[in-house]
Amino acid sequence: MIRHPAFTIEPWALREHRLDLGVLAQTESLFALSNGHIGLRGNLDEGEPHAEPGTYLNGCYELRPLPYAEAGYGYPESGQTVVNVTNGKVIRLLVGDEPFDLRYGTLHQHERVLDLRAGTLTRTAHWSSPTGAPVRITSTRLVSFTHRAIAAINYEVQAVDRPIRVVVQSELIANETRTAASGDPRAAAPLRSPLIEEENVTGDDGLGIMVHRTRESGLRLAAGMWHEIEGPDETLTEGRGGDDVSRLTVATHLSPGQTLRVVKLFSYGWSRRRSRAALHDQVAAALAAARLTGWDGLRAGQRRFLDAFWDGADVEVEGDDEVQQAVRFGMFHLLQSAARLESRPIPAKGLTGTGYDGHTFWDTEIFVLPVLTYTYPPAVADALSWRRSTLPLARERATQLGLGGAAFPWRTIHGEECSGYWPAGTAAFHVNADIAHAVTQYVDALDDAVFDRETGLPLLVETARLWCSLGHHDASGRYRIDGVTGPDEYTAVVDNNVYTNLLAQQNLRAAADAAERHPGPAGRLGVTEEEIRTWRAGAEAMTVPFDERLGVHQQSEGFTQHALWDFDATGDRYPLLLHFPYFDLYRRQVVKQADVVLAMHLRPDAFTAEQKAANFAYYEALTVRDSSLSACTQAVMAAEVGYLDLAYRYLGEAALMDLADLEKNTMDGVHMASLAGAWIALVSGFGGMRAGGGRLRFAPCLPAGITRLGFRLRYRGSLVCVSATREATTYRLLDGPPITVLHCGERVELGEEQVTRPNPPREEPDRQVRQPPGREPRPR
Amino acid sequence: MIRHPAFTIEPWALREHRLDLGVLAQTESLFALSNGHIGLRGNLDEGEPHAEPGTYLNGCYELRPLPYAEAGYGYPESGQTVVNVTNGKVIRLLVGDEPFDLRYGTLHQHERVLDLRAGTLTRTAHWSSPTGAPVRITSTRLVSFTHRAIAAINYEVQAVDRPIRVVVQSELIANETRTAASGDPRAAAPLRSPLIEEENVTGDDGLGIMVHRTRESGLRLAAGMWHEIEGPDETLTEGRGGDDVSRLTVATHLSPGQTLRVVKLFSYGWSRRRSRAALHDQVAAALAAARLTGWDGLRAGQRRFLDAFWDGADVEVEGDDEVQQAVRFGMFHLLQSAARLESRPIPAKGLTGTGYDGHTFWDTEIFVLPVLTYTYPPAVADALSWRRSTLPLARERATQLGLGGAAFPWRTIHGEECSGYWPAGTAAFHVNADIAHAVTQYVDALDDAVFDRETGLPLLVETARLWCSLGHHDASGRYRIDGVTGPDEYTAVVDNNVYTNLLAQQNLRAAADAAERHPGPAGRLGVTEEEIRTWRAGAEAMTVPFDERLGVHQQSEGFTQHALWDFDATGDRYPLLLHFPYFDLYRRQVVKQADVVLAMHLRPDAFTAEQKAANFAYYEALTVRDSSLSACTQAVMAAEVGYLDLAYRYLGEAALMDLADLEKNTMDGVHMASLAGAWIALVSGFGGMRAGGGRLRFAPCLPAGITRLGFRLRYRGSLVCVSATREATTYRLLDGPPITVLHCGERVELGEEQVTRPNPPREEPDRQVRQPPGREPRPR
Repeated sequence: MIRHPAFTIEPWALREHRLDLGVLAQTESLFALSNGHIGLRGNLDEGEPHAEPGTYLNGCYELRPLPYAEAGYGYPESGQTVVNVTNGKVIRLLVGDEPFDLRYGTLHQHERVLDLRAGTLTRTAHWSSPTGAPVRITSTRLVSFTHRAIAAINYEVQAVDRPIRVVVQSELIANETRTAASGDPRAAAPLRSPLIEEENVTGDDGLGIMVHRTRESGLRLAAGMWHEIEGPDETLTEGRGGDDVSRLTVATHLSPGQTLRVVKLFSYGWSRRRSRAALHDQVAAALAAARLTGWDGLRAGQRRFLDAFWDGADVEVEGDDEVQQAVRFGMFHLLQSAARLESRPIPAKGLTGTGYDGHTFWDTEIFVLPVLTYTYPPAVADALSWRRSTLPLARERATQLGLGGAAFPWRTIHGEECSGYWPAGTAAFHVNADIAHAVTQYVDALDDAVFDRETGLPLLVETARLWCSLGHHDASGRYRIDGVTGPDEYTAVVDNNVYTNLLAQQNLRAAADAAERHPGPAGRLGVTEEEIRTWRAGAEAMTVPFDERLGVHQQSEGFTQHALWDFDATGDRYPLLLHFPYFDLYRRQVVKQADVVLAMHLRPDAFTAEQKAANFAYYEALTVRDSSLSACTQAVMAAEVGYLDLAYRYLGEAALMDLADLEKNTMDGVHMASLAGAWIALVSGFGGMRAGGGRLRFAPCLPAGITRLGFRLRYRGSLVCVSATREATTYRLLDGPPITVLHCGERVELGEEQVTRPNPPREEPDRQVRQPPGREPRPR
Repeated sequence: MIRHPAFTIEPWALREHRLDLGVLAQTESLFALSNGHIGLRGNLDEGEPHAEPGTYLNGCYELRPLPYAEAGYGYPESGQTVVNVTNGKVIRLLVGDEPFDLRYGTLHQHERVLDLRAGTLTRTAHWSSPTGAPVRITSTRLVSFTHRAIAAINYEVQAVDRPIRVVVQSELIANETRTAASGDPRAAAPLRSPLIEEENVTGDDGLGIMVHRTRESGLRLAAGMWHEIEGPDETLTEGRGGDDVSRLTVATHLSPGQTLRVVKLFSYGWSRRRSRAALHDQVAAALAAARLTGWDGLRAGQRRFLDAFWDGADVEVEGDDEVQQAVRFGMFHLLQSAARLESRPIPAKGLTGTGYDGHTFWDTEIFVLPVLTYTYPPAVADALSWRRSTLPLARERATQLGLGGAAFPWRTIHGEECSGYWPAGTAAFHVNADIAHAVTQYVDALDDAVFDRETGLPLLVETARLWCSLGHHDASGRYRIDGVTGPDEYTAVVDNNVYTNLLAQQNLRAAADAAERHPGPAGRLGVTEEEIRTWRAGAEAMTVPFDERLGVHQQSEGFTQHALWDFDATGDRYPLLLHFPYFDLYRRQVVKQADVVLAMHLRPDAFTAEQKAANFAYYEALTVRDSSLSACTQAVMAAEVGYLDLAYRYLGEAALMDLADLEKNTMDGVHMASLAGAWIALVSGFGGMRAGGGRLRFAPCLPAGITRLGFRLRYRGSLVCVSATREATTYRLLDGPPITVLHCGERVELGEEQVTRPNPPREEPDRQVRQPPGREPRPR
């Protein structure tokens, strides 16, 4: 919990009006800037104090051995972990004889503002040194959306009431000391000095370039900086390089009111293959291009890029300013994680921290990509192209596991499986169906035949083949998928997990459909009519376990016969996984995160309304939400089955996961899936938005706390704006061809005119739902 | 496979008439000597060449960290591993200027004989040094059954045809270099220099004592030696100590035919609590006592001890000399592993090697103790007293796991759980029922009220309490035990494993019976009538899954609906665990080792004859015997359901597991459970012996290869000798009170007269059984 966030609630910014070093770690994550290629944690310019200094390049990782007390066949031997690369955001300041360090002297004022439309982090400070000399400092930082390899800082220091001598030291620094490792398995593996210096060129003209190589993974990375300095005439500048550091020193005297301004442009590149010289030139070239654009040009480009984004992606929430802020904050971070991927993955924490070792998981496909599909689709094509590019590794992994097709990794940076605990890793084969789901949803929304053929088809075919080798028809002809783990990580290695089976069914059908749409390319992938028949037969006979006595689906076969978890004896020992052994969690009815409930969201066609209501109530009582991936799904299904107030609470949890540090690990980075969850809870929950079969459907229904909900989304070339009040919903076509959408089942033709339809009345169901004691969502 | 064993088949010895360095590792295990307290691998006297130098003290272990790629709550953080302690069996020899080393010079003759009645390992060698000087060497080694802390060597070297100068160096040496670690998870964790020297006293009088401490576990151990030398008058002796070595040097000139004789007595002690001085004195005192007895006295004591053992334990196998030798070899090693435990465990490899880290497992209770119960019961009382002594640790572990009662470790030396892979470790809770089974069987056979009350009762009560916390009554009242692992390690974390449930049922009933037999002591353990009712209710309603369609028991719920293993695609990739991932093994019908079949052996009352036949055939086709714990059980049940030839083949496999190195890991130590299995296959298999409810039952039926089977066993104070031919069985009471036994269901009163009864005819059943292709047992 961020106890003293000192955040103000405003619609288009995250503003911290008072510095609290106790939550520095969390604010470093919240204020992180990224464009999906470069990520900078919101560290203070002067480098210290810090919780976790962090500069990341998407895809750039170091290897570490994965040890096992008892090894087994097929266990991954080495893991990939995100590297804190050369830090280019350090600008140190000496005021008189005293270093500018907030732990000393007097801080009169301090503000940090993340501007969601400008795409900048601006900091202002008014500080007096221990000897009393006051300065005003303003820095504005950005990671450019338009120059992929560039970040920039505009740093200004001003004398206040007396002349002062100031020295600014702007640095590139590698192999920074890291904080100590924690015992929490969700944190990252610590790495000591992972970078080996290969080149260090530092000039007095403001240019500095360093090339390093990672010790084990052998990746090469270059960082460069260039400076423009405005200050008094008598200003000394000197560049000097040392071990793992390139430093430009700027010394001057400032009269009261006078300002020294340093514009720092910095640039990154990394490669597995390119030479030292090539990488050096690459960052130098990026700097040259950025110099051409200039600081003002970078800022302007940033705003234009974001204006275009918000035009197609904004969500308006009237009546709840906190959620309004949170959902935009979330969309901003989502965009930051994905904007300039260019065939790299979206990690669970984006590039905002080292949580989960910087790995990408299934939640990208199931939570993040669906949002981007309707708001920023190029990123989805990028992310799925990355999956496509790892197909050879996934096929190799399948072969190693004795399976057909491709087995995508549970967690990875580069594509190899990095999971060190197979029951909650390798066995969670649903990741493959999740990728297929993201493909299917993207193809439905974009109707992009080239993607469908070049990227979607091979992904669908190879994942369908995996299911054929994992599943089998039993003696009575039913198709079973045994011994796998579904989304709920408190139940593992089970037979016929509903979620897995329903998504595998969808996967098999989608592969068959895609192969029939593209018979030529499918043929080149070796797909035969016989194989397509096999896929359809498996899908047709798929087992979906149902408990007739209770009238609910069984999360997996036998699940509802297990003992119930003893919540009364649990006290506040959450998350359970840190207090109870897996064996105890696995053998009882306790659910970490939405599983059947997620299946109901993603496969609405597979459940009757009565089943949805019964399942929701049953699993609600068992679900402890020890994962950030749960609240938004519970919001969606709570809204669908009629519990609007409960849905509203879950919306709050999803939206405030990071702003309120609900899982107490925002310090390791923000939770991309939960940030996406705010959109999902609003749009799919209260907007009732579902898509599929070339059709957008809505069923808006607002909770008491929201007076109007507006959102925009793109579907098959049309940009649709939906604005719902409690009584009615207005649909507008903002761009693109006319489109027909469904409003609560009724066809609405959208052309030039906006259309308003009343929302049918909804009543809270009679059935009471309850959560495990103490796990009720926070009231809003 | 031992390709060139050079072993002769003889009834009372294991004789190797030619040295083959290629199988040195295996013969070091086979020729190991032990009394259950001290274990000496069969290393050559001169120390080198060796495969694995090994000297072990039961219970003396070092700690090593257990690493995890992804840690979890309740995972053991450190493991215990058997330490190669101070080596006292080294006697080096210099002949002229050349060290006696079999890799050099000419070996004219070499023989090693393990004498199963004398309890000695005798070695003779006729060797010429590289310069041509011939010597004859004879050494006889023993680990005393009568002096627990003492081992001894009688070492003689004789000049042959010319005068020679010889130097004998007799040593205590600590921290010997070990062989490199293998990748096989069944091998031991390597330790480097685990011992820290605390004291080294070496005198010229032949006495040497060293005290060491283990680095991490902080155990103190002392080793002492004393020598008696007979040789020419002009013989120099000198003692000298160095780092980790105490050495007595004996130099002399030998004329042709003249002999130098060195008798070496050596002694060990270890303690967690006793001081350096106390341990020093302890081994010095043991040496003094052994000097009093003398070499000849030690040898005589050894033979008397073994004569008494064989009087009550011998098995005669006429018609199959190989099995005759093997079963005696096995019984000898069983005795060696257990004779002088005095409240220590019996490790899976005894004290013959470092396999499985020197840990004890459930197989001690299920395979080893049942044999010793009827042949050497004091060892059973010792081994179960050790379990009793670890109850506080087992209760602590249960608490950590959120369970009631006691959770005994899957693998351990000292009592703490050391399993680093919980699905095949901690989750195998059946170990608790296995301990209860051993208690129940011992109490039935011995009728020992003191043991029953002091040792059996607390073990039964605390294990019953564990089952009550693991199990629950479901909505229809059935008692379920979910999420545990049974004996078959190719299926893990399942619901209602038949074996586990049936043994837990027996455990619950035995605890209730014991508590009712001893109401006072039970009351002091907190047992109430209500608790006893709970135990009986759980036992009564125990779930035993059965597949009505197939007419067989399901190894665990849903097992028979899983896909069959694809044996055709498996080729020779056995053991499967080294070639296939766990997830694939777990989700299919493939069985590592007898599971339902073992349940049928241990709980004959729980199955009808038809179920036994159907289950045996069904599981026979799925069982790959990748564990040494399977063949003997398959032999027993094959014999019971009528496949005598098949049973005979399984007998051969169990009996020759180590002599033929069938699992290719005899180098790590002999397989105690499989050695016990030879007895089990003969006595319980072809003898049809079962016991329980105060009654011994037999149903002899011999395979074609065995013309007569004789065995002796103790039951309730009576020593019974059974001698079966194909046609008839003769029962004799050798000692103790008259007893009634059952011969094929018919009561036979045994008093002074021997009784002969015809064996009813048995016919091979019509049902064909088959094994997975390529996994048929070897023909005999």
